[in-house]
Amino acid sequence: MDIFAGTSIYFIPFYLKLTMSQNTQKETIASLGEFGLIERITRQAVPQQPGTLKGVGDDAAVIDFGEEVAVVTSDMLTEGVHFNLMYVPLKHLGYKAVVVNLSDVYAMNAQPRQITVNLAISAKFTLEAVEELYAGIHLACQRYGVDLVGGDTTSSLTGLTISITALGSARRDELVYRSGARPNDLLCVSGDLGGAYLGLQLLERENEVFKVNPQAQPKLEGYDYILERQLKPEARRDVVEAFKKMGIRPTSMIDISDGLSSEILHLCKASQVGCHLYEDKIPMDRQTRQMAEEFHINPLVAALNGGEDYELLFTLPLADHDKIKNDPDITVIGHMTAAGEGANLVAAGGALIPLVAQGWNHLNKK
Amino acid sequence: MDIFAGTSIYFIPFYLKLTMSQNTQKETIASLGEFGLIERITRQAVPQQPGTLKGVGDDAAVIDFGEEVAVVTSDMLTEGVHFNLMYVPLKHLGYKAVVVNLSDVYAMNAQPRQITVNLAISAKFTLEAVEELYAGIHLACQRYGVDLVGGDTTSSLTGLTISITALGSARRDELVYRSGARPNDLLCVSGDLGGAYLGLQLLERENEVFKVNPQAQPKLEGYDYILERQLKPEARRDVVEAFKKMGIRPTSMIDISDGLSSEILHLCKASQVGCHLYEDKIPMDRQTRQMAEEFHINPLVAALNGGEDYELLFTLPLADHDKIKNDPDITVIGHMTAAGEGANLVAAGGALIPLVAQGWNHLNKK
Repeated sequence: MDIFAGTSIYFIPFYLKLTMSQNTQKETIASLGEFGLIERITRQAVPQQPGTLKGVGDDAAVIDFGEEVAVVTSDMLTEGVHFNLMYVPLKHLGYKAVVVNLSDVYAMNAQPRQITVNLAISAKFTLEAVEELYAGIHLACQRYGVDLVGGDTTSSLTGLTISITALGSARRDELVYRSGARPNDLLCVSGDLGGAYLGLQLLERENEVFKVNPQAQPKLEGYDYILERQLKPEARRDVVEAFKKMGIRPTSMIDISDGLSSEILHLCKASQVGCHLYEDKIPMDRQTRQMAEEFHINPLVAALNGGEDYELLFTLPLADHDKIKNDPDITVIGHMTAAGEGANLVAAGGALIPLVAQGWNHLNKK
Repeated sequence: MDIFAGTSIYFIPFYLKLTMSQNTQKETIASLGEFGLIERITRQAVPQQPGTLKGVGDDAAVIDFGEEVAVVTSDMLTEGVHFNLMYVPLKHLGYKAVVVNLSDVYAMNAQPRQITVNLAISAKFTLEAVEELYAGIHLACQRYGVDLVGGDTTSSLTGLTISITALGSARRDELVYRSGARPNDLLCVSGDLGGAYLGLQLLERENEVFKVNPQAQPKLEGYDYILERQLKPEARRDVVEAFKKMGIRPTSMIDISDGLSSEILHLCKASQVGCHLYEDKIPMDRQTRQMAEEFHINPLVAALNGGEDYELLFTLPLADHDKIKNDPDITVIGHMTAAGEGANLVAAGGALIPLVAQGWNHLNKK
């Protein structure tokens, strides 16, 4: 082997040493966390291609194609970590797997055009099950006007893994990165937050009941909205289209997949600004508040750290305030400040609490 | 839930019914096979976007970007199916995972430019292990001048899954599809075949020995070439570059990932032609023949059905014969015929044997 180690070191010593080490001195992925890991492994990912306008570090990469640019984003969902097939119907899963990728494209202020779908499935899956999953994928493609153009279907020893890459396009001057926010910009969010997290809590609770008593029917009535937020989220194409009509181009934007705190910190870091986020401005649905109460959870925690809402978080120049102030689907939740002031939650009583990126850290999950 | 079923049918009945059915009447994925499954799930994938020049059905999809086109291809590798970490070093695995995708881009006569990498890893993996995997990914990027522009790193309950999407670009008139072969075109292949399959057999054998006697050192000496073919394949950028220098544009092309038989049948089907493939013309390395003899395998079977050689299979007009006849790296292995004649192997004795797509069907693997 010309470029790597000699053949004599193949076998188990390598594997034992590197992948199954029980040596607690070694830095584990869990201890590093998702963002730490990404930072570590992408250090070497310095673009060499002149066409790579933006590499790692935003909602999507941006690639130069002359008049137009292409944006590319990828997401992976694994069974037992991102979804539980005990209560997630495969059609919903397929739909959601597409939508979470489209959401990243919209977060660049671009239009999604094509997707590729890679699937690893256990051989125990019936054809009917795979077709159900693809029914959801096709439905999302149809609704968002996106083409499924390729992918790979392979087997796995255990579990289901779905990996989707979405391609979009935009004029270069339309693109919105995470890095354009300036002090005094308005911090805005579409829709409402925390619902997807509480929908998940509800499904998990009913699943626990079901495991003890399989005759029991799950009690889901009256919580359609938060269940839908969890099981069938939508990407905010409508918001991006509304920007065009209103003549708005946000100064920065990101979609909310990991929770509001984490996403605000991404904007602040990329834009080198601070922010004031007003606790009492954060939009939450009635069902979200009800379910939070039932679980004795502060709904604010669900909004800040819950994740999976797939709303758009963006900043606008103050001058754009009139354009959005009557839009029932957009809420001003704060404003950006100088970097030195940090990213803070302004509590109802006026106290400043520094935002922490708790997020939805899968790598810390058992 | 507006578009799907009512909430009352969520829970286990759905899951039981669709994903874990023990009902042997149901069509399983294994019985349908990989190509059957792809055919079934992509029926609905009819492009709606005017920019989708080619969707499912070639080595890569093709997307219109004005003067240039983008090509997109995705591949997924799962632990225990595509690789065994007992004898595959992580650096080699990362390298190979990139190369198999680049190979698809070259098979379109395009230049790879960017990749995205999605990774699902068990939390037991050390940071060192992940860095080793990425060292291979970065090395491949560097060698092929490709940028890593994004991806997702998440945890899995068990096993390692790698999903890579490669983007390339080409002028529209340079692209080579599977569908352009015509009767009388020369059927050509780069490099030699069957080595990767026999390298795998050797590694599997030594791994079995090792499992019985962990003190034994694997006997791999003298088989560097076929081990390298399996553990560190290269994509044939050099061949695509040579085409440009020689003023050649193949009439059709595909890369050999599933074995020669299967790939020839893809070309014949897409181009609506037949072919004569000459048994005694198929290029094989000395180590491939030696190892085949040791295993009492007909080396021809390794070449036809073994897969993972990542050579390019292409067709040329007869008029191009002079351009390639002295190239030691390109072998004419047959010629295309009218569709009615079918795809046949011409045995050493002259008998015609219809080619069968045995390929490397992961979905039939246990």
